Amino acid sequence: MPELTLGAVAQAIGAECAGDAACVITGIHTLQQAGPSEIAFLANGAYRRHLKETRAAAVILAAGFADECPVPCLVVANPYLAYARLSQLFSTMPVAKAGIHPSAVIAPTARVAATAAIGPRCVIGEHAVIGERTVLQPGVVIGDRSRVGAGCLLHANVTLYHDVQLGDRVTVHGSAVIGSDGFGFASSPEGWVKIAQNGGVRIGSDVEIGAGTTIDRGALDDTVLEDGVIVDNQVQIAHNVRIGQGTAIAGCTAIAGSTRIGKGCTIAGGVGITGHLTIADNVHITAMSLISKSIDEPGAYSSGTAMAPTQEWRKNAVRFLQLDQLFRRVSALEKK
Amino acid sequence: MPELTLGAVAQAIGAECAGDAACVITGIHTLQQAGPSEIAFLANGAYRRHLKETRAAAVILAAGFADECPVPCLVVANPYLAYARLSQLFSTMPVAKAGIHPSAVIAPTARVAATAAIGPRCVIGEHAVIGERTVLQPGVVIGDRSRVGAGCLLHANVTLYHDVQLGDRVTVHGSAVIGSDGFGFASSPEGWVKIAQNGGVRIGSDVEIGAGTTIDRGALDDTVLEDGVIVDNQVQIAHNVRIGQGTAIAGCTAIAGSTRIGKGCTIAGGVGITGHLTIADNVHITAMSLISKSIDEPGAYSSGTAMAPTQEWRKNAVRFLQLDQLFRRVSALEKK
Amino acid sequence: MPELTLGAVAQAIGAECAGDAACVITGIHTLQQAGPSEIAFLANGAYRRHLKETRAAAVILAAGFADECPVPCLVVANPYLAYARLSQLFSTMPVAKAGIHPSAVIAPTARVAATAAIGPRCVIGEHAVIGERTVLQPGVVIGDRSRVGAGCLLHANVTLYHDVQLGDRVTVHGSAVIGSDGFGFASSPEGWVKIAQNGGVRIGSDVEIGAGTTIDRGALDDTVLEDGVIVDNQVQIAHNVRIGQGTAIAGCTAIAGSTRIGKGCTIAGGVGITGHLTIADNVHITAMSLISKSIDEPGAYSSGTAMAPTQEWRKNAVRFLQLDQLFRRVSALEKK
Repeated sequence: MPELTLGAVAQAIGAECAGDAACVITGIHTLQQAGPSEIAFLANGAYRRHLKETRAAAVILAAGFADECPVPCLVVANPYLAYARLSQLFSTMPVAKAGIHPSAVIAPTARVAATAAIGPRCVIGEHAVIGERTVLQPGVVIGDRSRVGAGCLLHANVTLYHDVQLGDRVTVHGSAVIGSDGFGFASSPEGWVKIAQNGGVRIGSDVEIGAGTTIDRGALDDTVLEDGVIVDNQVQIAHNVRIGQGTAIAGCTAIAGSTRIGKGCTIAGGVGITGHLTIADNVHITAMSLISKSIDEPGAYSSGTAMAPTQEWRKNAVRFLQLDQLFRRVSALEKK
Repeated sequence: MPELTLGAVAQAIGAECAGDAACVITGIHTLQQAGPSEIAFLANGAYRRHLKETRAAAVILAAGFADECPVPCLVVANPYLAYARLSQLFSTMPVAKAGIHPSAVIAPTARVAATAAIGPRCVIGEHAVIGERTVLQPGVVIGDRSRVGAGCLLHANVTLYHDVQLGDRVTVHGSAVIGSDGFGFASSPEGWVKIAQNGGVRIGSDVEIGAGTTIDRGALDDTVLEDGVIVDNQVQIAHNVRIGQGTAIAGCTAIAGSTRIGKGCTIAGGVGITGHLTIADNVHITAMSLISKSIDEPGAYSSGTAMAPTQEWRKNAVRFLQLDQLFRRVSALEKK
Repeated sequence: MPELTLGAVAQAIGAECAGDAACVITGIHTLQQAGPSEIAFLANGAYRRHLKETRAAAVILAAGFADECPVPCLVVANPYLAYARLSQLFSTMPVAKAGIHPSAVIAPTARVAATAAIGPRCVIGEHAVIGERTVLQPGVVIGDRSRVGAGCLLHANVTLYHDVQLGDRVTVHGSAVIGSDGFGFASSPEGWVKIAQNGGVRIGSDVEIGAGTTIDRGALDDTVLEDGVIVDNQVQIAHNVRIGQGTAIAGCTAIAGSTRIGKGCTIAGGVGITGHLTIADNVHITAMSLISKSIDEPGAYSSGTAMAPTQEWRKNAVRFLQLDQLFRRVSALEKK
């Protein structure tokens, strides 16, 4: 368990230290659950009612709430951001030691930085490069000629195929696969003929890739994720997709081949985006929508229907299949 | 191939043994396909017509069908449940031998029960605990401080991060990832700032987790699956979700952060449930529904539209986008 | 980088060699991006406008476009198919060397062909068989009694359970799992009782399986993929499904138990198909459709709604829940 003094906590988030700067802080919790050695935070007005009962050592909050707080305050402009920064100081993640585990298999032509930590059973291919302070958890496989930058963290059983590039400070979660073949086939009288996927994958810096996510290599050019993109679990990114800087993609979303997504977009979970589309910057897509046309304008987009009890839903769903006919019936009525 | 006598089969499912108790039974099959050394079962009235032609050694069925059965009967109250119990006696799964394979890498502070079977290339972290009779297939990675109970089975290439707890008799299928980081980021002028995910994952006993499923660790508290939960393949369970006892979740469903699901629910495949919701006990959700509001009452819920030939569907889908306008047209007609 | 002469390229795709047969070709690219040592292709009339500006060494195209081409032409009947064939000659994928890496763990009763290439950290179970020229990338796990044909390629961290059969020339991408338990449970007063999944998986020849895809073993019989089936990433195929020859399934589609899909179907991404259905040959399903009934006729099928700006969508989605009522209102108007 990491420990910090309240003074160090205040300093870390740029707040003035109200209360006893020497008080030992052992963690962060919610207003309701923080104990007397923990920091709480109020980032969402909906939780304001919990403020007056908190037992936290101190609370991170915006200036407007300081008067209501029964314990020392750490006043900041953006409490949620302050919480994010602070959370990293209390990380419970074990720290990997630099060095190469004897069970790892490293190709003779691979270059591994001296400060990198290569876990048990990792395999690193010919001409691959692993940057300074990068950590490979057990079972990671790095293909030939792939390059992982500095300060990256690849969790257990991640696979990078050949010719995949990651920038610096990239995190990839367990069982993710980067560089698998795009789904490209030509039909022929004898069946499907595979199109060799001869491009690679280029991923910028400060990118996060979720567990079980798959990112295909390009057919001719590379598949590209720009800097600062964050991708949740079980997302599928097809060949030659390009995702703009800072775009966030939630779990189980699928993006088909050659689609280009702008910067600063947020794509909710379970979304499908068909191939060869262009999505503008600052587009926001709601959960489980199917995007089947390019989007030129920033804004929010959706498809689907609202939920309902199944019995009620079924009646309406049947009617959906008669909708065009209904429009014609109404037009006929209007003509009368 | 396991073999049992008909007498042993009858005893295993609590039926009286009609027929020759010494007859050797080599397996289970459907009414149509069971041969003279196999047991068949009639669990669904829809298959009743196949009963009179079966060549099975004996048939598991409810009392009401015994008269129609041309071969010996094993009469039970719940034939499907009897089939489930019997199927385990004819399991074709290879039995793992207790012991640690020499290629496994076990941290010095880990504790592995003497009756556990640790397969080739497994990696077990510091202070991890593996219970009695638990089997780790090849390539399983167990993070520091994670605890796996007794009688568990983790299939090949499963990853448990640090601080993950499994109860007893938990099965986890290939490439599943438990304990990956929740998708938590605060936005800042410099881009997304990661929120360290400092909680863990707690999974009860008698739980099954499908292949490729991902279960994220909590941000502050743990993500929790209670006893008896069953989860199919490629399900995504986000941080701080809590799933109640005995709930069943089919393939490719995604549950967003902090949502709480009750006990005894059944959630079909491809469902999406957005974050911070509460779903009551005994709720049933149909395939590919999007649940975007809390559900207080037991019952069945749905969203989406019914399928149709694409040409017909397209006409109606276009009309969907004019629906609000149609309601106003009908109101205008009604006023006339 | 592979290199071929223009003459060899022409011969490989069955075209007559216009231009200098000795010219060295280093790769393939689009009309816009191909440089003077690369081949371009025109497979889609929409790109015709780029033809006259291409700097490619030669262009693969149909006879009708030859007149407009400023550089040597390679005229073929099906330019896309010719591109597919040619792409394989320029494959950038590293070639694996035959032999068994010393870190692989091979059961004494397994049979591995002398020309097979078994990568670092692979594990091959008892009585498993690996065919001629088959390549196992690092971390592949093959269960007991599973059989992999000749000329197959299993990418890193793939898992085959026991009793799984692959034909010849099958490619399986990273982290895919074949042979995991079907999701079969009987309910009992004490909770779910697991049904042992005692069938296997049989996969034909010339099949491709995407990264992170999961294919469950059958309960009694086998799950079957016939020859020439192609499956993209993160597809879920449940127990006892049967998929007909040459059917193509795009990413993130899920097919529930015991459903039979015909030959020559194309199933787009994110589709859900419920259990125990029969889908005819030559059925085409559009993205994110839910197929909940059997389909007897070839043709295209869909469900869902079209996308729209969220504000506009929300108004219509609310109206969807009043649709049945609207039909009754219109009927009442018609009666007047």
